[in-house]
Amino acid sequence: MEEIKLFCPATIANLSCGFDVLGLCLDNVGDEMIIRKTSEKGIKITKIVGADLPLETEKNVAGVVALAMISNLNLDFGFEIEIYKKIKAGSGIGSSAASSAGAVFGINELLGRPFSTKDLIPFAMEGEKLASGSAHADNVAPALLGGFVLVRSYSPLDIIKIKSPEELYATVIHPQIELKTSDARSVLKQNVTLKQAVIQCGNLGGLISGLYTNDYDLIGRSLNDEIVEPLRSVLIPKFDLVKQKAIENGALGGGISGSGPSIFALSKGKETAEKVAKAMSQVYEEMNLKYEIHVSKVNSDGIKIL
Amino acid sequence: MEEIKLFCPATIANLSCGFDVLGLCLDNVGDEMIIRKTSEKGIKITKIVGADLPLETEKNVAGVVALAMISNLNLDFGFEIEIYKKIKAGSGIGSSAASSAGAVFGINELLGRPFSTKDLIPFAMEGEKLASGSAHADNVAPALLGGFVLVRSYSPLDIIKIKSPEELYATVIHPQIELKTSDARSVLKQNVTLKQAVIQCGNLGGLISGLYTNDYDLIGRSLNDEIVEPLRSVLIPKFDLVKQKAIENGALGGGISGSGPSIFALSKGKETAEKVAKAMSQVYEEMNLKYEIHVSKVNSDGIKIL
Repeated sequence: MEEIKLFCPATIANLSCGFDVLGLCLDNVGDEMIIRKTSEKGIKITKIVGADLPLETEKNVAGVVALAMISNLNLDFGFEIEIYKKIKAGSGIGSSAASSAGAVFGINELLGRPFSTKDLIPFAMEGEKLASGSAHADNVAPALLGGFVLVRSYSPLDIIKIKSPEELYATVIHPQIELKTSDARSVLKQNVTLKQAVIQCGNLGGLISGLYTNDYDLIGRSLNDEIVEPLRSVLIPKFDLVKQKAIENGALGGGISGSGPSIFALSKGKETAEKVAKAMSQVYEEMNLKYEIHVSKVNSDGIKIL
Repeated sequence: MEEIKLFCPATIANLSCGFDVLGLCLDNVGDEMIIRKTSEKGIKITKIVGADLPLETEKNVAGVVALAMISNLNLDFGFEIEIYKKIKAGSGIGSSAASSAGAVFGINELLGRPFSTKDLIPFAMEGEKLASGSAHADNVAPALLGGFVLVRSYSPLDIIKIKSPEELYATVIHPQIELKTSDARSVLKQNVTLKQAVIQCGNLGGLISGLYTNDYDLIGRSLNDEIVEPLRSVLIPKFDLVKQKAIENGALGGGISGSGPSIFALSKGKETAEKVAKAMSQVYEEMNLKYEIHVSKVNSDGIKIL
């Protein structure tokens, strides 16, 4: 294989009570990427459509992860990468992660899969480090593996894929405001009460139980983030109302996607997820705030070869 | 049915990373209890063998929970309760919970099951309130339901039973020292770092995933309590060494049972659990400290009718 074309999915990290440990993969929201073997050694980003991102390999997340991956392989050829961005940077649905995950996945395919998909995660995390300063895994891992992904531990890295219940849909609304990652970080507190930690553990345990047992009600009851959502949600226009409307219209629950400003809701069934989308949109319609909205099944497979 | 004889199992609460939210039920460690219908109304504790506990109904956990349960039922008869204690009070394996759970379970059976087993939990929690001042559920719920039990939330009470992997065994060693609950509580800190809370969530998520997927290695990797164990374990003689010996001899992991002083280890298979028991015992043998040790399969069913 000399060339590969990929769908690189968007992802929801910091999934409510799963702050910093749980993410999921979306199905019909994502970038496209073409990767080609070249006789020239090294990595070249030859084209970026849809976003104003650097073409220099060392400054582009796809470039950086590709370099990290091939650095020890002693190849006598190289790769060029074309990126067709559809996920807006800064939206909170894993724009950089899609590019990072896509680059390592695609190159691995073109090399005949020397790495397992899980082994690709640390390379892809290098892109997150470039994009946000922290090598987090809760976007790149679901982009690569699909479904829900638990980051049990970072040292050592321990990633657990959890299959999504068949009828679980996500609705994600992206209000078109700029929310700087630094601002989203600065509102976090370094300490939480023991009681908050216990409540968060109870909910995360419930959410994971619900995923394994296809218990949609339990998933809904567990989607409470006691720690981060109360602090960050004030940075997102009408967060409480958007979430409330989602739940009133049948969503199981919801929260902040990544570090925002996107808001997600989970629903049982496509029809409900679409009704929820309409209700969430209505809030921003009424205040004349531009937004994008996505309704997507949870993507069980992750990156797809097109 | 006029009389019922029960096995009331011991339980492990505060299961490592599941502090305050996760407990399990033991299989061959527990009290026995006989409950009889009486023509006289009310509840009488007629016999307690094996422990120096109050016979007055209002001061005995079995009495208190039985009263709470029948208070709204307008019965023209009553019950008498005989308790054969085998679980030592203050051992950290749910001695009071066994009596509380046994009393409500047995009376429910004699009444023809007006309550579901889950509905019995709030009554049984009244006994924990009498015994320890806090109406916690992570001993009484596993005693009643069996297996592993997650307390997702206290308000409202939301209890999730998780089936135990078939070959999972617990080894529990009880060093015969007195550890006051008030001391075990006083060493806790009211605040934890956000990082600790995230690590705890990751491990709890991993543990619950491991239980659903019968992944013994994942269960083992997840048995880390970053928050409570480092503070409480200093109150338990040679805790670190006992745990280390358990793991060196094949245990998946372990921690403090309840609020101590018992130490538990989980193992795959009875043979390993017994080897682990020998290694744990050896530590206390060498320091001439009296101990009791138990090896038990995780009990899937909870309380048993004998």
